[in-house]
Amino acid sequence: MIDKVCIALDAMGGDHGPEVVVPGAAIALTRKPDTSFLFVGDEARIRPLLDAHPNLAAVSEIQHTDVAVRMEDKPSVALRQGRRRSSMWLALEAVKGRRAHVAVSAGNTGALMAMSRFCLRMLPDIDRPAIAAIWPTLRGESIVLDVGATIGADAKQLVDFAVMGSAMARILFDIERPTVGLLNVGVEEIKGVEQVKEAARLLKEQAFPGMDFRGFVEGDDIGKGSVDVVVTEGFSGNIALKTAEGTARQIGEYLRSALGRTFLSKIGYLLAKHAFDTLKDKMDPRKVNGGVFLGLDGVVIKSHGGADAEGFASAVELGYDMARYDLTAKILQGHVHERAAMAAGMASATEPALAEAAS
Amino acid sequence: MIDKVCIALDAMGGDHGPEVVVPGAAIALTRKPDTSFLFVGDEARIRPLLDAHPNLAAVSEIQHTDVAVRMEDKPSVALRQGRRRSSMWLALEAVKGRRAHVAVSAGNTGALMAMSRFCLRMLPDIDRPAIAAIWPTLRGESIVLDVGATIGADAKQLVDFAVMGSAMARILFDIERPTVGLLNVGVEEIKGVEQVKEAARLLKEQAFPGMDFRGFVEGDDIGKGSVDVVVTEGFSGNIALKTAEGTARQIGEYLRSALGRTFLSKIGYLLAKHAFDTLKDKMDPRKVNGGVFLGLDGVVIKSHGGADAEGFASAVELGYDMARYDLTAKILQGHVHERAAMAAGMASATEPALAEAAS
Repeated sequence: MIDKVCIALDAMGGDHGPEVVVPGAAIALTRKPDTSFLFVGDEARIRPLLDAHPNLAAVSEIQHTDVAVRMEDKPSVALRQGRRRSSMWLALEAVKGRRAHVAVSAGNTGALMAMSRFCLRMLPDIDRPAIAAIWPTLRGESIVLDVGATIGADAKQLVDFAVMGSAMARILFDIERPTVGLLNVGVEEIKGVEQVKEAARLLKEQAFPGMDFRGFVEGDDIGKGSVDVVVTEGFSGNIALKTAEGTARQIGEYLRSALGRTFLSKIGYLLAKHAFDTLKDKMDPRKVNGGVFLGLDGVVIKSHGGADAEGFASAVELGYDMARYDLTAKILQGHVHERAAMAAGMASATEPALAEAAS
Repeated sequence: MIDKVCIALDAMGGDHGPEVVVPGAAIALTRKPDTSFLFVGDEARIRPLLDAHPNLAAVSEIQHTDVAVRMEDKPSVALRQGRRRSSMWLALEAVKGRRAHVAVSAGNTGALMAMSRFCLRMLPDIDRPAIAAIWPTLRGESIVLDVGATIGADAKQLVDFAVMGSAMARILFDIERPTVGLLNVGVEEIKGVEQVKEAARLLKEQAFPGMDFRGFVEGDDIGKGSVDVVVTEGFSGNIALKTAEGTARQIGEYLRSALGRTFLSKIGYLLAKHAFDTLKDKMDPRKVNGGVFLGLDGVVIKSHGGADAEGFASAVELGYDMARYDLTAKILQGHVHERAAMAAGMASATEPALAEAAS
């Protein structure tokens, strides 16, 4: 466990830049006082905002740069123009150089992922990164990954995702053996693609001490909170996430229009306002803001681009937790087991052949 | 257009069998009076139920069989045990023999799809069936396919799905050129798998007269109703559908528990009850009950296994519409254009080579 967490912030990322990043950090600091910050970006814009928060200013440094990745930049353009000099890159570089424990950016996802891979590199033996989202459920929260870092994944990569997701769940939910499910479809006999079936076989066989593998789950299990960690490849994960967001917005819209329609329903709304506030609170996307980039040699958190200060603070606090309880080390622990189990599996598979050769 | 639609019903399908199928048909008949029915199943159970609905009995026949596919049967088991003799098979056979225009079953999806393929066969040049779901949206309703008939689809199969889905949309929404979108993920530069990109290229190039292709859509576009028809392969489609169902249930649960918590919120609920009923009505899964099996040489409708009589009636009425306005003919029309466009595409692609050879 780290004593004081230093968080590098891409101050220019997101729709609002420093106007959200600085106040967001100030909110996070009130809840996580053992934190220091490195703001990377345009000093002329950051300094006055920081001056308005003396407590924050006391634990913060600014690293100036003129260059910022734009929200609409393609990853390749961002890399070409922003490498080694943009606020996004320099925040990541602070993590690489161990001057910060975690980088948080509300900048564009594609660029952040491309730069993270380029700057931080992957952990040994993990060939694909994943973005893990925190998903509100009827039981509390679950982790769903990959929600869109890459498309497609073979069985070994899905096992890696399970290892990384359960490492994150151990920190976030403070449980020893989070339950893990593989996302699949429920049509008998065409159940799942080959790689999903094979990943299930491997996860059963390898019996990871750090996870409780529960087999397949379906789309409706996510909202139920049937498992702590839902594993899938990035295409279906991204579609599940966006579809759920769309459905929540759709129902909110129905509700608003239904409740505003008549005088009685308006009165009813006022009387039940507290209940609606509870509901709103439960569905508040700001509370679960922040995707965690997994598989990299360093911790990176992506905040929603449109997040306000409260939302950005959630992403900062998520980064704090991941750094403080050493996500990367926990992933590596799980991964060491995975490799040992694979090696053992291969050894036992080759044994009969060896015995035969010896006879 | 067909004068009188004959609907073959698998009376033994679903969780409740004839107890739901017969009253469901009775409800459908009140709204679609130009219908006749063929009930396939256990006559001893169907007859007394039918006697309770004289108007229905007057336009119905019973085809007796003792054999019923169970909800838990695997497709291969169902086929082995139920072929040529189960109520499910015989309802399909009535469609094949042109004694009925459409078959409706609430039996298990895997078995119904396997039997449909086996009994009815595919339409010429369509190699994969799809299940199309009707999805309530902020604009009304959209069609989403495939929600789980098969897993994976190449570009040509995705184009087939677009053709079939837009044929269905022309009937269901009574519009000449339904808008069509390909489901994709929104992460820049890793946007989509190869087959999805290639399908987009083909759909643009072929310029189908019966559809207005709008390019890619994302998960949250489904609930918005951004397009009339959302096309994707069965794995991601099934996950999207189940995730949306799960999210709707989750929010309903939140709402119920929030509104029941205090005295004021209970009063508020009562005052706004009409508003909640409107909402409930909008989200009533019975209203959009029924998946349409597309790509087969015959129309087959799958009702939810747990549907009540009102829900089953929706599936029957959906089947009525698809038969009456000749879904199969509309698919074939679209498909003829697709083949012509493909042939033209190939011709123009080979032209330079021919010119070269001639020179």
